[in-house]
Amino acid sequence: MDHPVTARLRAEVERALEAFLGQYPAHDAHGLYAPVHYLMALGGKRLRPVLTLVAAEAEGDRAAALPAAVAVELFHNFTLMHDDIMDEAPLRRGQPTVHARWDVSAAILSGDAMYTLAVTALAQSRPDRLPGLLACFNRTALEVCIGQQADMAFAGRTDVTVADYLEMIRLKTSVLVAASCALGAEAAGASAERVAHWYRFGERVGLAFQLQDDLLDAFGEATGKQVGGDILADKQTFLMLHAQAEGDAGLREELARWAGPTDRPQAKIDAVTAAMRATGADDAARALMERYAAEAAEELAALEVGDPELASALAGLTRHAIERTV
Amino acid sequence: MDHPVTARLRAEVERALEAFLGQYPAHDAHGLYAPVHYLMALGGKRLRPVLTLVAAEAEGDRAAALPAAVAVELFHNFTLMHDDIMDEAPLRRGQPTVHARWDVSAAILSGDAMYTLAVTALAQSRPDRLPGLLACFNRTALEVCIGQQADMAFAGRTDVTVADYLEMIRLKTSVLVAASCALGAEAAGASAERVAHWYRFGERVGLAFQLQDDLLDAFGEATGKQVGGDILADKQTFLMLHAQAEGDAGLREELARWAGPTDRPQAKIDAVTAAMRATGADDAARALMERYAAEAAEELAALEVGDPELASALAGLTRHAIERTV
Repeated sequence: MDHPVTARLRAEVERALEAFLGQYPAHDAHGLYAPVHYLMALGGKRLRPVLTLVAAEAEGDRAAALPAAVAVELFHNFTLMHDDIMDEAPLRRGQPTVHARWDVSAAILSGDAMYTLAVTALAQSRPDRLPGLLACFNRTALEVCIGQQADMAFAGRTDVTVADYLEMIRLKTSVLVAASCALGAEAAGASAERVAHWYRFGERVGLAFQLQDDLLDAFGEATGKQVGGDILADKQTFLMLHAQAEGDAGLREELARWAGPTDRPQAKIDAVTAAMRATGADDAARALMERYAAEAAEELAALEVGDPELASALAGLTRHAIERTV
Repeated sequence: MDHPVTARLRAEVERALEAFLGQYPAHDAHGLYAPVHYLMALGGKRLRPVLTLVAAEAEGDRAAALPAAVAVELFHNFTLMHDDIMDEAPLRRGQPTVHARWDVSAAILSGDAMYTLAVTALAQSRPDRLPGLLACFNRTALEVCIGQQADMAFAGRTDVTVADYLEMIRLKTSVLVAASCALGAEAAGASAERVAHWYRFGERVGLAFQLQDDLLDAFGEATGKQVGGDILADKQTFLMLHAQAEGDAGLREELARWAGPTDRPQAKIDAVTAAMRATGADDAARALMERYAAEAAEELAALEVGDPELASALAGLTRHAIERTV
């Protein structure tokens, strides 16, 4: 994300978010907006709205996409606020989650308000492009809910396949990255065909991004989340499902023994990551990630982005998804 | 609601809801939509979407308002699903609430999906009228959140005034009734001035409706909710705030003694309703309700609805708000 184009657009996103949220001060409305400002101030890379602006700039009308850029970042953070309640997560980016710092009711209601703010921002788009933007945004919002529902439904199941998992993360994570790109192109007046290429580019980047998330959680560096958190929570990640599918009977028994709460968390993390490595889960995840990155690059090639700075920024964003360490 | 016009429009609302929700079957999307269908099937008078269609028919284009009618009813039920979590309510219309029947996560997430469906329905409105409809819908959604936040904030305060309460119920309840009317008129292409009259008509009906709710909870017949529920929950209703403001020191002490949990619920309800009556809280609520109804009638007069059947249906809806017993 250190490319000069992404740095410039990220600064523009921050200014747009500040201007928009400045209309809803933290102390107003009985404190309804305080959790919104708190969560937004925890930072984040603003990957989604940066992609919105990159796509819009490549399509020749960046300014028209600023409302959509604000909308996707607010929507993303709304999903974090509600997902953290459902996942009973104590921390987000190393800080207390909204429901931990306030309470569940505040996280539900400020999340609902944040969703409203996202739609409010989007509604400031050019009126003639609003129906198309709304259709994409609403379809995506519903898919994100379906993805979270699938994620929760997986917890009680023992028959989840790697394919089920990939479809779940596509819905829960990738479609919003895809829509971020598509909304930028659509806001800028791109053709339906070009919007579809932008969508698929973002979808592939999002899938790669999520696989790198799985790898970082199991093997990686500090992300502000607990390392090994997925393993301790018995999450059915790509790595876990691959190990279960490809391991022999002994390895599957070993994994089954470690399932559930433990009073030796580090030993569980060590045993499970060893099992993942033994089945080549990490290599498989990296290979799949490379395939997604290559597919993203194909979409970019089809788009023939003329501006060399934008083209290199997009290539950088693709590489970043699979090479990042945090 | 027994007027032939409202009966006809309620049937049209039910058909439109059925057609729209038929696209999202209860068993699809890992059960995400099951709580949506469950809550919608609990019934209700469909007051808000009926008002949307009445206003649209009066403005000469009922069909154009069907998407908005579906949207306001879905949005209303979304707020019920989330409010019931925050209020820890076990029952809704005499049946288990969604979080009681499923769990809190299901109620959060299916509520989020329901909000998305509301915006999805609204987005099917005529494209040229969509920006105006969205602006009204979004402003209203935010105000409803502010009203719920105010309601929760009141619980811990001892300095809430009757005026604070009336502003809270205006936001929590009335603005959505107001918007239901305004969206119908706007969808049908009415002028800004006429839309504003429709809005104020709905707002006044909504305020009257909520005061009747307070009266029914304290003194009324079965509503599917527990009678005296507000009193047992120490809710700061119009009646309670009036009694506290107008009662003498002895009566205020009596009310303070009963505040909080009790093992004699019926004795608490009897004592508090007696205190309300002693200060004339019930008469004051009825007088204020009549004033709101009169103001609603003034807005109707300004609108000069030509069709006598529609005019009598609107008068009936206004009367119903203050005369209903359930």
